[in-house]
Amino acid sequence: MDLPKYKDIVQAHERIRPYIHKTPVLTSKSINEITGCELFFKCENFQKVGAFKFRGACNSVFRPRLKELSRGVATHSSGNHAAALALAAKMRGIPSYIVMPENAPEIKINAVLNYGGKITFCKPTNEAREKELEKIIEKTGALLVHPYNNFNVIAGQGTSAKELMEEISSLDTIIAPVGGGGLLSGTCLAGHGMDPEINIYGAEPKGAADAQLSLKTGKIEPSINPVTIADGLLTSLGSLTFQIIKTHISEILTVKESSIVDAMKMAWERMKIVIEPSAAVSLAAIIENKNVFRNSRTGIILSGGNISMENASGFIIKRPG
Amino acid sequence: MDLPKYKDIVQAHERIRPYIHKTPVLTSKSINEITGCELFFKCENFQKVGAFKFRGACNSVFRPRLKELSRGVATHSSGNHAAALALAAKMRGIPSYIVMPENAPEIKINAVLNYGGKITFCKPTNEAREKELEKIIEKTGALLVHPYNNFNVIAGQGTSAKELMEEISSLDTIIAPVGGGGLLSGTCLAGHGMDPEINIYGAEPKGAADAQLSLKTGKIEPSINPVTIADGLLTSLGSLTFQIIKTHISEILTVKESSIVDAMKMAWERMKIVIEPSAAVSLAAIIENKNVFRNSRTGIILSGGNISMENASGFIIKRPG
Repeated sequence: MDLPKYKDIVQAHERIRPYIHKTPVLTSKSINEITGCELFFKCENFQKVGAFKFRGACNSVFRPRLKELSRGVATHSSGNHAAALALAAKMRGIPSYIVMPENAPEIKINAVLNYGGKITFCKPTNEAREKELEKIIEKTGALLVHPYNNFNVIAGQGTSAKELMEEISSLDTIIAPVGGGGLLSGTCLAGHGMDPEINIYGAEPKGAADAQLSLKTGKIEPSINPVTIADGLLTSLGSLTFQIIKTHISEILTVKESSIVDAMKMAWERMKIVIEPSAAVSLAAIIENKNVFRNSRTGIILSGGNISMENASGFIIKRPG
Repeated sequence: MDLPKYKDIVQAHERIRPYIHKTPVLTSKSINEITGCELFFKCENFQKVGAFKFRGACNSVFRPRLKELSRGVATHSSGNHAAALALAAKMRGIPSYIVMPENAPEIKINAVLNYGGKITFCKPTNEAREKELEKIIEKTGALLVHPYNNFNVIAGQGTSAKELMEEISSLDTIIAPVGGGGLLSGTCLAGHGMDPEINIYGAEPKGAADAQLSLKTGKIEPSINPVTIADGLLTSLGSLTFQIIKTHISEILTVKESSIVDAMKMAWERMKIVIEPSAAVSLAAIIENKNVFRNSRTGIILSGGNISMENASGFIIKRPG
């Protein structure tokens, strides 16, 4: 298995630097007081398309030579990866083909169309998605860019932790959410590439704890009927991401839904920033495990900010247990 | 009348620099496309206590010599100025006395208590506030720090525009919301102190358009029964702020309530930041007056971010006309 290494993240960073935002690192004295540690928030909610996904998508469309890409790129996604790939492809001047479930939110569909992505709708099942994507790749000759189990995508996602550690010296710990594992595995490679002694944690909802289970059983466990408001963390690990994560990770921490909401609200009230539930999971893990992080300098990757005000307030008012 | 000048803002900035946040300047490509101009958002929602008010409060408690302040500072406020003055006084190591209406929101009361402010509650009328404040000053010998009609407060508020113009060169225009006029008059002094040709606009809700009226009639018009969700902009101008504003301002633009909500939502969705209605008024003015700002480089002071998620979503869902 050809796994990316730290040097691939360094190269990815050089490559995508002109296209991405160098996102700011924010701190909050009052959240530090609440959690008992010193937190450095890497704000990928301010990244283009509102999520870290743009880093991996960018590396995927700018790394291959143009002639390998002349027929475009293709993926299936109902979320941030779709918009990210469409925008990256537009910047490279190549077509993008996105398979989306017919019940995808209008706001996500419009984002993809806005960036010139060509959408094919399918029934909202994994099987229908993959079949449709296969057909499109056969027809167009487009290059498949998997949302997370992809060498270039992982290397691209790792550039966020690299930027964070370049800006903030001597972190003890770094934490990122885990769904398919693209962000967390990139964070592992960057983290240990820059500091072999840094502790790296993953965070996921208790209602979608397949990554924690996979580390326990030693094989990729499927994500079966996940139940969580963190809609970016529903998928299971891939062969590449599992391999990297199990080598590097200290532990995967799981959190309650109510903690995710509390963390979203804390970011709103104390930092005046909008983070999506998947991004709030890392902060929730710190709040639920204060003893693990006490007195540490901890970097926390806020993965994205794509949530409507209506949905956010719905979560706050219901506050799922 | 002893009015502050640009040099007073320069001195204020030197004085308060160790205590304030140098807030970031954000941009948004998609909002630029919508408005047809290039906007630079000065994010005072990220300032300490969540609003620009901390700048003026800080200058007020750090400018006088300690012996003039040994009996503390006092003010009446139900909003951001109360928390700002309490925190600034705590940093200087002097007591602060805050008169608050008995119906002030618990979150604001707790903020003041948190910073060690001594609260006296009063009936929620202007008369009761002022009478109570007089009594306290008489009893304690504390120095009155008016929320906006105060030399040191105005000079402090001007440091936000100064920072913005130091970071972003050759702005054509700068815009700030106007309530009592502390922020706008400080912005006037900083703006024309650094660039005599810059255009300076104020923005206020149509439901609280006393500043626009005051410029028209040439005297301070009281704010009578203002109706707006922008709860930071309910007060009328003071003698100092009126004098400065009328000398420097190009125009005061007024906006509909629905535009304020749209602007708040735009900041949430496109920038992933939380701004309070009073801060959204400036962006709303640009959206309602695209012809005035077209193709300009415009600095926009986002005054604060103190709004609960519940209130924000209530505004969005109701969307007052």
